[in-house]
Amino acid sequence: MKGQIDDAVEPIHDLAHLGHLELLTPKPEESLHFFTNVLGMSVTARAGQSVFLRGYGDYERHTVKLTEDCQAGIAHIAWRTTSRPALVRRVAALEAAGCGRGWIDGDLGHGPAYRFVDPDGHLMELYYETEYFQAPADQRSRLKNQPQRYSGHGIGIRRIDHVNLLCQEVMPNRVFMEEKLGFRLREHVILDDGTEAAAWISVTPLVHDVAYTLDATRSRGRLHHLAFWVDNREDVLRAADIFLENDVFIESGPSKHAITQAFFLYGYEPGGNRVEIFSGGYLIFAPDWQPIVWTQAERARGQAWGLRLPESFHSYGTPIVEVTREAMREVPVFDPR
Amino acid sequence: MKGQIDDAVEPIHDLAHLGHLELLTPKPEESLHFFTNVLGMSVTARAGQSVFLRGYGDYERHTVKLTEDCQAGIAHIAWRTTSRPALVRRVAALEAAGCGRGWIDGDLGHGPAYRFVDPDGHLMELYYETEYFQAPADQRSRLKNQPQRYSGHGIGIRRIDHVNLLCQEVMPNRVFMEEKLGFRLREHVILDDGTEAAAWISVTPLVHDVAYTLDATRSRGRLHHLAFWVDNREDVLRAADIFLENDVFIESGPSKHAITQAFFLYGYEPGGNRVEIFSGGYLIFAPDWQPIVWTQAERARGQAWGLRLPESFHSYGTPIVEVTREAMREVPVFDPR
Amino acid sequence: MKGQIDDAVEPIHDLAHLGHLELLTPKPEESLHFFTNVLGMSVTARAGQSVFLRGYGDYERHTVKLTEDCQAGIAHIAWRTTSRPALVRRVAALEAAGCGRGWIDGDLGHGPAYRFVDPDGHLMELYYETEYFQAPADQRSRLKNQPQRYSGHGIGIRRIDHVNLLCQEVMPNRVFMEEKLGFRLREHVILDDGTEAAAWISVTPLVHDVAYTLDATRSRGRLHHLAFWVDNREDVLRAADIFLENDVFIESGPSKHAITQAFFLYGYEPGGNRVEIFSGGYLIFAPDWQPIVWTQAERARGQAWGLRLPESFHSYGTPIVEVTREAMREVPVFDPR
Amino acid sequence: MKGQIDDAVEPIHDLAHLGHLELLTPKPEESLHFFTNVLGMSVTARAGQSVFLRGYGDYERHTVKLTEDCQAGIAHIAWRTTSRPALVRRVAALEAAGCGRGWIDGDLGHGPAYRFVDPDGHLMELYYETEYFQAPADQRSRLKNQPQRYSGHGIGIRRIDHVNLLCQEVMPNRVFMEEKLGFRLREHVILDDGTEAAAWISVTPLVHDVAYTLDATRSRGRLHHLAFWVDNREDVLRAADIFLENDVFIESGPSKHAITQAFFLYGYEPGGNRVEIFSGGYLIFAPDWQPIVWTQAERARGQAWGLRLPESFHSYGTPIVEVTREAMREVPVFDPR
Repeated sequence: MKGQIDDAVEPIHDLAHLGHLELLTPKPEESLHFFTNVLGMSVTARAGQSVFLRGYGDYERHTVKLTEDCQAGIAHIAWRTTSRPALVRRVAALEAAGCGRGWIDGDLGHGPAYRFVDPDGHLMELYYETEYFQAPADQRSRLKNQPQRYSGHGIGIRRIDHVNLLCQEVMPNRVFMEEKLGFRLREHVILDDGTEAAAWISVTPLVHDVAYTLDATRSRGRLHHLAFWVDNREDVLRAADIFLENDVFIESGPSKHAITQAFFLYGYEPGGNRVEIFSGGYLIFAPDWQPIVWTQAERARGQAWGLRLPESFHSYGTPIVEVTREAMREVPVFDPR
Repeated sequence: MKGQIDDAVEPIHDLAHLGHLELLTPKPEESLHFFTNVLGMSVTARAGQSVFLRGYGDYERHTVKLTEDCQAGIAHIAWRTTSRPALVRRVAALEAAGCGRGWIDGDLGHGPAYRFVDPDGHLMELYYETEYFQAPADQRSRLKNQPQRYSGHGIGIRRIDHVNLLCQEVMPNRVFMEEKLGFRLREHVILDDGTEAAAWISVTPLVHDVAYTLDATRSRGRLHHLAFWVDNREDVLRAADIFLENDVFIESGPSKHAITQAFFLYGYEPGGNRVEIFSGGYLIFAPDWQPIVWTQAERARGQAWGLRLPESFHSYGTPIVEVTREAMREVPVFDPR
Repeated sequence: MKGQIDDAVEPIHDLAHLGHLELLTPKPEESLHFFTNVLGMSVTARAGQSVFLRGYGDYERHTVKLTEDCQAGIAHIAWRTTSRPALVRRVAALEAAGCGRGWIDGDLGHGPAYRFVDPDGHLMELYYETEYFQAPADQRSRLKNQPQRYSGHGIGIRRIDHVNLLCQEVMPNRVFMEEKLGFRLREHVILDDGTEAAAWISVTPLVHDVAYTLDATRSRGRLHHLAFWVDNREDVLRAADIFLENDVFIESGPSKHAITQAFFLYGYEPGGNRVEIFSGGYLIFAPDWQPIVWTQAERARGQAWGLRLPESFHSYGTPIVEVTREAMREVPVFDPR
Repeated sequence: MKGQIDDAVEPIHDLAHLGHLELLTPKPEESLHFFTNVLGMSVTARAGQSVFLRGYGDYERHTVKLTEDCQAGIAHIAWRTTSRPALVRRVAALEAAGCGRGWIDGDLGHGPAYRFVDPDGHLMELYYETEYFQAPADQRSRLKNQPQRYSGHGIGIRRIDHVNLLCQEVMPNRVFMEEKLGFRLREHVILDDGTEAAAWISVTPLVHDVAYTLDATRSRGRLHHLAFWVDNREDVLRAADIFLENDVFIESGPSKHAITQAFFLYGYEPGGNRVEIFSGGYLIFAPDWQPIVWTQAERARGQAWGLRLPESFHSYGTPIVEVTREAMREVPVFDPR
């Protein structure tokens, strides 16, 4: 039996990748120390209350904008389109959907961006024009195909990888990202009552550029974690040693997820945002990928090697929201990963 | 300075990935032993003089067709398209270019395929309909998102990664693949006299799905190597230990290429074809990637860590062709990688 | 401040290393499958109800004797002495201590052995004469300094590393091993009430050749686990993948112990005995090593990266013993590792 | 056949391990940058023209004394004894051999030391009293059994491992170290004409604490390299990336030696001394180890995976000595490793 799927509608190829995101921190100095000395990212610019950061393998000028704020959380998430016409097409779709917030002039490092919100309320933007990182002489790599010198300092994350967002309902967000922006569903969790509890979606061959997970506190717009890539599983183990020696709170890992097969390490940066050091996973090249469905029972088995994630993994997000007993009663019990 | 590139023409997204290839061997039993016990691939079918093989992470039924023949070499290379309409569009382009060889009914595991040759004469095909691998009970993985059980036997390659083809002239082949099929140039070598000596191109974020390299023997249609992916650099080191203990000829590595940043190990399978065990490299998500250009002087510096590849790396390919002195006089001296 | 320790008494150098041990299993076929196909050990001999096994890096003929029995557990543990006179000296010391059980003629692979029991009742033996492994032609390594070919099959443990014994009281056993046999204390846990809850001791630079841990069931003579060495942390991760795919129960790990710094993976072989796949740790070359003392509060912090070991880790051992409520009331609550 | 060896004479256990060594550099600032920022060692003291350095896992106060001098080379090599009586015994043996140079008061970090020269003229010393490293608060590790915090900066070598010395004749030096100090021969190379071309010897279970190699220049007293330990092969690969980005000359590797099975990387520190980053190898616990003999033909096959070491590996050492044609004629052609 061949050609078992329907492909009448051709896939959208308008989004290229996760571009950057703006992270909020109430402890800007401590957070900056974490991103530069623990993660090993470098500073490319400062403006107002923000510092711009990059991994040595990021091709754009920066990928994290760290902004001082009264509390931790995510300010916005930016996606780069595959072309200018692609940007125009997606903006049209977003405007038609009524979730657009209009154009901004751009920011340090990138051109005009169109802002919108996903159904849960996370602020996002699309842009195409960008600035390639031009390494100053002392940061130039001996490898011509590497945007920046590998410094050997700290964990040395290579690049931003993905973002995991908490939301009140997964399905509306997932479908929105599929239909309006061309994301493809890779894996998801369907509880016994039919609720979609988590979904991993991407526009690239990565298993996820973004994941949506039910927020146990029934809040909106929260961040579960931001993930950074390192090349080998051994690099994640080394990251755990560095977290340990730098008093970074390790919430879980290193271990291997069943879903996505990611080799993970979760910690909290000083501002309170959860950060993942990530390697492994697998690449999806199939254009007609059949999403993997995980049942409630399968999720209950824990991670790949049987590890149980701590309770905080299922309730903690930024901004931190108090969970009332009322709210918790309504929340289905499940393991979002 | 933003938006520094011209993107008037939108990229073609019609090819999804390298599907499979047919490898020829004059020593079918020994080659099969190599692919199953050394590489750890599994057999999915046998037909005529051919055995069909797969890595545990390949989603299609098989990715290597090993066929007995009087000499080693590559019989054909197959690319899967992103959709049926995409297949139709590419066939039209190939027919217009006059390099089409017509449709075949398909083969075990995939549907109708359109055959064509690249300018150098390598036989290729495009197909869309395919068969997803359905693991028999005893080969089913405990990970639902893994097509097949990781057996822990031999090297345990995860999937087919890319193919490196020798050719008389690089540029015509590279441009053909770009214009007719939508490949994007990632890195290439330009000699002092302007000759393009090697090019790494892809339709995926991998640095290369296929590379073209000047054939020092001035032959046509030869294979330099076929590459298999493992997840970590440590897996490549372990592969070298396994090659050693199985008397597989190690031509070079493990070490790190400057170009592509690949962590490599090259050996010859018993039939004579060069095989690469490969990890690392980097992913390209930029839709407007600026190809990396390596000069003759830069190539002369050796690999990333200074390793020199042996002479055979620049002359040996399959089928094996005698190099006349005449022919060698015309060949520019360079390091194809 | 120099020379801060007293070294009036010179250390004993009479024991060379852990030689081998005899493991009991009620499921001989399944256990044998585990040791050969999952761990990748090879069989060197069979006699009666026993199969003799070895890792590719063990220099002696075998290091594990797997014997069918009505229940799992450890039958005996053998230590090789540094010389014949050393054997004589230690036997004299054991006889003087009144814990000797007399000589046996030896066994397959080694010469006369003197049997004795530690205070907890674990049966041990000392021997000097041994048989170096002589690899048959098809198992000969391409590396002259490696006793056997690395097969690349299964986990591929290199050698036996250490054994962890449960006991009713730690201190008498630890002191016995120090005074009678020359073990040196490397690390131990002292609870708030002064109880020594666990001790890691060795005659080699390894952090432990044997560890003694309080038995939560107040039983005598039980085995906590038997450990095998692999060269890299990545090999332990791969072992976890292999355990997963072979339905080996993973009790905990891979993760890093605080005590010993061992990178560990614990699983149960089909007979019920706990097995550890182990890498890392550190070597102790200091002749006047100051033992590391861990307090109850320090143990409560979990492993190096914060992992909590499951309850079974503190109660399960072989043979399996029912724990009465009475008995449990007396047991101090602590984490033996 | 059991007990195949003669053990009438009991082994000497008087030397504990390589303690430290004094390295000379004509470029003190650049060398210091290398040892601290590239290797990741830390400075514990400065005195006169010397800086004292340590790896995070070294238990003694320091293990490398870096001293400014007119040329590179090794000033002295220090061995710690297992006890004070052991020190007395070895001094007596050295004095009887007539190679003693007398006592010195000690140095920063250790007590009285007895100086002597090996037959080739390398200055060595024995000492017992030493100072354990007491980490200042900001360098204290979160792991109680680790002498110092793992900083995550640079390569992060764990400890000094061994030293490789060039010499005019191997055998007299090897036998001297065996007979006078208790070293045991682990592996050696015997050329076709019977010359011992290299020997790896140790007092610990490490394959070598010191190696002697024929000096192709027929000089005396030269250093081939000083080696530092990292825990995993992957750490050596990462070290190569760090060498590359810091313009450290990579002479060879990373790759695997056949002899010792060491996973190696060789580079030159700015002063000119060769430094090895080292992992793997194997431990020898056998008290009656049968030395591995490598023939000239076996050495000609290259390293484990076939790599050929460059010519410089066989001729370069510090201090750098001009090789006259006359001298070279007498030198047997061989690969010292």
